[in-house]
Amino acid sequence: MKIRIGIMGYGNLGRGIECAVRQNDDMELVGVFTRRAPEDVETLTDVPVYHVDKLIEMKDTIDVLMMCGGSATDLPKQTVEYAKYFNVVDSFDTHAKIPEHFANVDASAMESGKIAMISVGWDPGMFSLNRLYGNVILRDGNDYTFWGKGVSQGHSDAIRRIDGVQDAKQYTIPVDAALDAVRSCENPTLTTRQKHTRECFVVAKEGADKARIEEEIKTMPNYFADYDTTVHFISQEELERDHAGMHHGGFVLRTGKTGLNGEHNHVIEYSLKLDSNPEFTACVLTAYARAAYRMNKEGMKGCKTVFDVAPAYLSPLSGEELRSHLL
Amino acid sequence: MKIRIGIMGYGNLGRGIECAVRQNDDMELVGVFTRRAPEDVETLTDVPVYHVDKLIEMKDTIDVLMMCGGSATDLPKQTVEYAKYFNVVDSFDTHAKIPEHFANVDASAMESGKIAMISVGWDPGMFSLNRLYGNVILRDGNDYTFWGKGVSQGHSDAIRRIDGVQDAKQYTIPVDAALDAVRSCENPTLTTRQKHTRECFVVAKEGADKARIEEEIKTMPNYFADYDTTVHFISQEELERDHAGMHHGGFVLRTGKTGLNGEHNHVIEYSLKLDSNPEFTACVLTAYARAAYRMNKEGMKGCKTVFDVAPAYLSPLSGEELRSHLL
Repeated sequence: MKIRIGIMGYGNLGRGIECAVRQNDDMELVGVFTRRAPEDVETLTDVPVYHVDKLIEMKDTIDVLMMCGGSATDLPKQTVEYAKYFNVVDSFDTHAKIPEHFANVDASAMESGKIAMISVGWDPGMFSLNRLYGNVILRDGNDYTFWGKGVSQGHSDAIRRIDGVQDAKQYTIPVDAALDAVRSCENPTLTTRQKHTRECFVVAKEGADKARIEEEIKTMPNYFADYDTTVHFISQEELERDHAGMHHGGFVLRTGKTGLNGEHNHVIEYSLKLDSNPEFTACVLTAYARAAYRMNKEGMKGCKTVFDVAPAYLSPLSGEELRSHLL
Repeated sequence: MKIRIGIMGYGNLGRGIECAVRQNDDMELVGVFTRRAPEDVETLTDVPVYHVDKLIEMKDTIDVLMMCGGSATDLPKQTVEYAKYFNVVDSFDTHAKIPEHFANVDASAMESGKIAMISVGWDPGMFSLNRLYGNVILRDGNDYTFWGKGVSQGHSDAIRRIDGVQDAKQYTIPVDAALDAVRSCENPTLTTRQKHTRECFVVAKEGADKARIEEEIKTMPNYFADYDTTVHFISQEELERDHAGMHHGGFVLRTGKTGLNGEHNHVIEYSLKLDSNPEFTACVLTAYARAAYRMNKEGMKGCKTVFDVAPAYLSPLSGEELRSHLL
């Protein structure tokens, strides 16, 4: 019997799950659930679309519900609510609020006896795992995380709120010299400015003062003031033609010393180069859906993160197969 | 109370454990156990040295015993034997024999109620984990593992067995062009020759026929015939001065496609650059010793591999601390 997956919320991540489930023979998609009118939602495949009001009454037909809303307002409510009825997986990525989200979701899932996996994806997610593995191996060392090159949605939004801006995309770019210094075990202390640059592609409204817009971007506190920022003004056509992609990626490095007197240096590096950020994130969530299902079958319950999942639960292969083929 | 560690066997790996335990505040070293006369063993620190005959009678003073023997003859016997009395961790690395070793160790540890972690290190170990994580995320993709640059003990030994050879070191070196082809998502099918080259530094005995030695190396089946091999003849002094290091490393890559029609490519890359292969391996074993201890405290038993260990068990930090600092 296949693992029956439901998708709650149908944006880029939901579409990614729709594709990812097709790549996993042991899973099937029950439906997409939306707050919109179902007939207005056009899916990539012939998966049924239901209004979210139908979700709870269909609970016996779904093994794992994929929470595909946003971290700002959707997930803090939805994951807590639906963990009362379903094993759930979400991609909650507001790092500072993870402890609070964990506590709320855990209370809900402990009561229902379900598994709720939160903060799954690549950061938080795979990057977190690599930070943990790096830390436990190289105890006397330093952590470095670099993001990009990729679009930061939050920074793009911040530019769009500036008066006179019609549209914008912002790329976060890791600084090669900083990466090289880390890789050569110089253990640099890197400022915000030294780690990443920001490159902005901005469509100005007709007649807008471009010099003022550029100045407002470059001096914006928190978002840009601490970075070396480049601003390019382009047309809407150029933005749509050249900057529609959702590629992203990044690097997690742990460097550290071993030996009686720390005489040996080591570098652990994990990197991702992704053509589609939401589709890759969806693939990670889908693997953790399998783990959620299997862990719950074994009687486990409550809120879990990637730290709590033994890797074998992620794979459809048996322990014997994993040991023979991948160990 | 600290986790009390014993070291069984005192070679490079044992010395690495001796150093690694010092970097972990929640652990202490009880002693080194050896088949040699204890007074002949010179340790790096003031850890007590005992004859192996004392080991079993000291079982209540040791929480986890680190098995530091070789995979060829020591570990298949020792891990099975000592799992009857101790939580144990070994670095068994004969990939083809892992299923058999697992079965033997599991029988022993299930009966004693202990945890026996086998095949811990970087390959098998961290590389295996990255193969697994890569596979479960990118379902439609390819795996690539490259080793080096680093010394292969087995290949160095094979050269030393050739008539007229006094000493030798062999480096395995990944081919940059192959790595680049993988990273650019060309999904190449790589032959043995295309993935790695072999570089040999050989000390010939006085009067030996160097041309014949070189020919014997380059045509040796399994070890060298399928590779582009370079042979350098050097003096014993040069070998000892320039090739005494134990650096190693390698790369695990998973490339794959996502999207409705596989239109998006992704690259996951994990790499290690190690000044000391045995010290890094020891650090991995030490982290898994913590997991073995904690999992056994929770009532788990039997043979485990890195696939079976939820990452949180590896860290001395609490779940709350991990979620706040590393997620």
